[in-house]
Amino acid sequence: MDPKPKIPRPTAKRLSRYFRELKQLVDAGRSTISSKQLGVALGLTGAQVRKDLTYFGQLGSPGVGYDVERLYLRLRQVLGRDRVWNAALVGAGNIGRALLAYDHFTVGEFHITAVFDSDERAIGVDHGGRVVQPMNRLSSFVAEHEIRIGIVAVPASAAQEVVDAMIEAGITGILNFTPRHLDVQDGVSISSVDFTLALEQLAFQVSLGLTGSLDDDPS
Amino acid sequence: MDPKPKIPRPTAKRLSRYFRELKQLVDAGRSTISSKQLGVALGLTGAQVRKDLTYFGQLGSPGVGYDVERLYLRLRQVLGRDRVWNAALVGAGNIGRALLAYDHFTVGEFHITAVFDSDERAIGVDHGGRVVQPMNRLSSFVAEHEIRIGIVAVPASAAQEVVDAMIEAGITGILNFTPRHLDVQDGVSISSVDFTLALEQLAFQVSLGLTGSLDDDPS
Repeated sequence: MDPKPKIPRPTAKRLSRYFRELKQLVDAGRSTISSKQLGVALGLTGAQVRKDLTYFGQLGSPGVGYDVERLYLRLRQVLGRDRVWNAALVGAGNIGRALLAYDHFTVGEFHITAVFDSDERAIGVDHGGRVVQPMNRLSSFVAEHEIRIGIVAVPASAAQEVVDAMIEAGITGILNFTPRHLDVQDGVSISSVDFTLALEQLAFQVSLGLTGSLDDDPS
Repeated sequence: MDPKPKIPRPTAKRLSRYFRELKQLVDAGRSTISSKQLGVALGLTGAQVRKDLTYFGQLGSPGVGYDVERLYLRLRQVLGRDRVWNAALVGAGNIGRALLAYDHFTVGEFHITAVFDSDERAIGVDHGGRVVQPMNRLSSFVAEHEIRIGIVAVPASAAQEVVDAMIEAGITGILNFTPRHLDVQDGVSISSVDFTLALEQLAFQVSLGLTGSLDDDPS
C-alpha cells in the first residue's frame, strides 16, 4: 500500500487544483516553480502552498522552489491517478445509460466495467459491451474483479439498500447520483453528483445576482 | 425586484443547508429555535448562525430564538424557491436526454421548457412534449418565454459558444454539464455538475482512505 499521509480536509480539497496546475506546467516543460508562483496560479498565499505541500514530503528547496515533475508525480500517486479505477454501475435507467455513453467515463483512468439492475426488462441489454446483469451477481463480480468503486444511479428510495450491498461486497468508494444523503461506514468514501442541488444553488445565485460560481472563491 | 442583501460567499454556500433544516422544522410543526440549536443541527456555532442570519433582517429575539416559519419563508424567498424556474436545455445527447427524463427536473420548481440542438438528426424529436428545436430558435424562444436558466449539455468543445449565445439571448444563470471551465460576464451565475471531477475526488478519497464525503465538513 502507498503511504497515506494524514491530510486536513481543506488541503485535500485543493489537491485536484494543484494537480491540474502542475499537469499544465509539466506539459509546458517547466522544471521548477516557487510556492509564491504556484499560489498566484491557484489564488492562494505562498505560505498556504508550502503548508499544504509539507504533507507529501520534502519536495521543494528554499531559493529554488519545487521540482515540478517530482511534485506532479507525487500528487498523481496521492490522488490515485497513476492507476486504473474499475467501477460497477448499479442502475441502467436514464442516468445510468448516460454514464455508460459518456466519453469521460470510458476513457482515461476510469472504467465502468459492469452494470447491474433489478429490473427484468433492463437485464441482458448490451451497453457498449457491458451487458446488464441481475443484482444477485453484484457481490461475486465485485469480489472476482476487485472492483473498488460503485456508482449508484437508482431511484432515491432504493439507494441506501444498493450502497449497503456494494459495501458488503467490498466496494470502498461510492459515487452517488441520487439526491439522497447516504450512510457509509468507516473507511468508505462517498462523492455525490446532485443535479437538484446544483440547480437549487444556481437559482439562488441568480436570485441574489451573484456573478460566476459559488465554488470560485479560493477559501 | 426582491431586495438583494450583500451576502458573503461562505454564508451564501450555507443557505441551502439552513433551508433544508428549516423545512424539516416547519414540517415537524416546530415554532421557534435558538441559534445554538440550529447550529448543532448544522455543525456550526450559535455565533456563526446569528452572524449568517443577520443578513436577512431581524428574524430572531434574544431569549426566544428564531420564528421558524418566518425564517423559512424569508430564506425561501432569498433562495428563489418561491417561484418557478424555466430552463432552456441545449444539447439532446445522452446527458441532455437523461436530464429530460430525470424526474427531479420536471417536478417542483424547475422545468426544462425547451430543448435545442445543432444536430439535424436530433431536431424534431419529441422528449416528453418538448420537441428539439434548431439552435437558431434559441434567442427568440428565450426572449419570448423570459427564460433565465440555460442548461449546457453539449460536447466540451462547443460549450463556450453555446454559453455566449445563451447570455446574448438574456439568460443569466448557466448550469454547466461539461468538464470545461466556462467564462461568463458580470451578472451571470454559473453552477457546474462535473462528473469527471466527482470521480477524481472519489478516487483520491479512496486512495487516502478518507471516510465519508469531502463536502461533509462544516467549514
